[in-house]
Amino acid sequence: MSLSAAAETVVQLAEQLIARASVTPNDAGCQEIIGQRLQALGFELETMVFVDTTNLWARKGNSGPVFCFAGHTDVVPAGPEQAWRFPPFTPTRSEGYLFGRGAADMKGSIAAMVVAVERFTQRFPNHKGSIAFLITSDEEGPFINGTPKVVETLEARNEKIDWCLVGEPSSTEYLGDVVKNGRRGSLSGELTLFGVQGHVAYPHLADNPVHRAAPALAVLTATEWDQGNAAFPATSFQISTIQAGTGAGNVIPGELNISFNFRFSTESTAQQLKARVTAILDAHQLDYALDWKLNGNPFLTAEGELIRATTQAIHQVTGRWTELSTAGGTSDGRFIAPTGAQVIELGPVNATIHKIDERVAIDDLAELSAIYEAVLEQLLC
Amino acid sequence: MSLSAAAETVVQLAEQLIARASVTPNDAGCQEIIGQRLQALGFELETMVFVDTTNLWARKGNSGPVFCFAGHTDVVPAGPEQAWRFPPFTPTRSEGYLFGRGAADMKGSIAAMVVAVERFTQRFPNHKGSIAFLITSDEEGPFINGTPKVVETLEARNEKIDWCLVGEPSSTEYLGDVVKNGRRGSLSGELTLFGVQGHVAYPHLADNPVHRAAPALAVLTATEWDQGNAAFPATSFQISTIQAGTGAGNVIPGELNISFNFRFSTESTAQQLKARVTAILDAHQLDYALDWKLNGNPFLTAEGELIRATTQAIHQVTGRWTELSTAGGTSDGRFIAPTGAQVIELGPVNATIHKIDERVAIDDLAELSAIYEAVLEQLLC
Repeated sequence: MSLSAAAETVVQLAEQLIARASVTPNDAGCQEIIGQRLQALGFELETMVFVDTTNLWARKGNSGPVFCFAGHTDVVPAGPEQAWRFPPFTPTRSEGYLFGRGAADMKGSIAAMVVAVERFTQRFPNHKGSIAFLITSDEEGPFINGTPKVVETLEARNEKIDWCLVGEPSSTEYLGDVVKNGRRGSLSGELTLFGVQGHVAYPHLADNPVHRAAPALAVLTATEWDQGNAAFPATSFQISTIQAGTGAGNVIPGELNISFNFRFSTESTAQQLKARVTAILDAHQLDYALDWKLNGNPFLTAEGELIRATTQAIHQVTGRWTELSTAGGTSDGRFIAPTGAQVIELGPVNATIHKIDERVAIDDLAELSAIYEAVLEQLLC
Repeated sequence: MSLSAAAETVVQLAEQLIARASVTPNDAGCQEIIGQRLQALGFELETMVFVDTTNLWARKGNSGPVFCFAGHTDVVPAGPEQAWRFPPFTPTRSEGYLFGRGAADMKGSIAAMVVAVERFTQRFPNHKGSIAFLITSDEEGPFINGTPKVVETLEARNEKIDWCLVGEPSSTEYLGDVVKNGRRGSLSGELTLFGVQGHVAYPHLADNPVHRAAPALAVLTATEWDQGNAAFPATSFQISTIQAGTGAGNVIPGELNISFNFRFSTESTAQQLKARVTAILDAHQLDYALDWKLNGNPFLTAEGELIRATTQAIHQVTGRWTELSTAGGTSDGRFIAPTGAQVIELGPVNATIHKIDERVAIDDLAELSAIYEAVLEQLLC
């Protein structure tokens, strides 16, 4: 297969990045590769290290509006390497795909961004506004020392992003079929229900927390939290872990541990959900401890320049009209949106992300780079 | 403290047995010690080894009725030895107690039985009927190669036990306050509920088995299975283990595993309980697998010679009237009762059994031996 020169350039950069085993929070030199390419275009580089995380803030231009590509160089672990068709950190082209950990999430997107900017700045050296890159090595991890800290730093010096395109793999069936223009909120709870341990032969001396909790769980799992709205699906509640018992068949457990998670729409607030859960537990007179973690509030980028530009760019390159969605997992967009930036996510097909044999269609990488370039043209020309 | 000669004899034998670390199914030579003492009294010994388990059947006399002492030389593991006041397999007298693993469950009882028989046969060399011992080393374990196999062997040659006294620690507050004249049945279930694993962000692509199961668990734990009767408390249902989830907060589990146990009265049969559980699961349209294990059917020894003799003997030695009970855990009595034998359980206070610092009051050991002797006198003179 012979690639166009443009496609070849994107794939080669993706390969360079995949060859670095940058498992969270290790950047493994990826940002240096990206930085060198951007510096050659006149970008000013600022490496921000927070604890174990390396972040790159790169900007070309001093005026507004500021268009920012956001992404992450870190990848999730490869899992059992012998299960892969090709070694996960040895980028391999096969059957029209580029294989390797991070190919789709999201080193392919980063390569497409960099090459898009190279072409765009060559074609339009005097474009308006600024172009920036916000690259972290802690998106797949605890998301503490990555994007949140960079955003904090920018906010502190009043440096604003107007439009942010996150390269997360938003596509489902084919490239560009879905653009994420927001995300549900994520609220987690760690619930411990207390009972009294004992022997199954003497149930009157024990108090089985599984039995106590069962009616409350039936209510929690049957509750309609809201119905969602035009932009968001209904809020969902999911128990991810439940555990009680020592493994001994004759012991009534003394504690029941439950982990659960809400993905919530803008029809509910974290505060409301907490209050409703607590009310259900209290109504069942349970003895419990409950630790909450708010992973992110829901955010939504309304129709505006960024969505229009992206929609047009996708149509221009692929001939297709995209669909806006707020479904799916969290991304670093949730940290950028609260600054007032318009934020969307557009990247490759996500079918193989976090899996064995992660891969991206080579044609898609080239098209994605062309879409990114067209977005810049829509907004900065 | 200076003990009577009778008490000293019981305690010394108990100490010899406790010094053998006979954790199930290892007899560690205990039965040899017991056998030597019984052989000296004219007992015929028959060691029955089944797979990993050593059993002793000893009998004195050829005529009926047959009175049998039943017990086990095996003990549960000591747990963390450094947590004990004295090393668990170094019998130690302190503050009126004999400490050591097995002191109360049930090497103390065995010592009391042997010494009771020594005194009784000396006093009544021409007693009627026969005296037997059925000793196993697999009561605390899987109870496959112990008492059930010995009973099978006796049944095959048509050797019958008329009265059986099991030395299980039946006493709760003080020696002889409770005699067990039956036991509830025990029925266990291993339930696996099937769903579809997925990401919490995409609940419509998954099917959370915890959510599916919650209403059924609420019904199972609220059901009144029966109300018991004069001899038995109500049947109880207890979930001993519940587990689902990988530990990852963003994964909807694909399976839910539950272990549960019924302790059931003679008002319910195992078959009925199985049918009712299945009906509840089916009514909730659950996809599940369910493996049952019937650990034992309920049995009851009605008022008769054995209960009368034991009640009288306890009153004669302690001045107190005992209470009949069918509560508590299972014992090997469940394997002997189906042969038509009258079976009761009478042994020391069970407060410390299976625990750190297991112990038995030395005075109780001496009194227990006197009670056993008085039972023999009631029945065989």
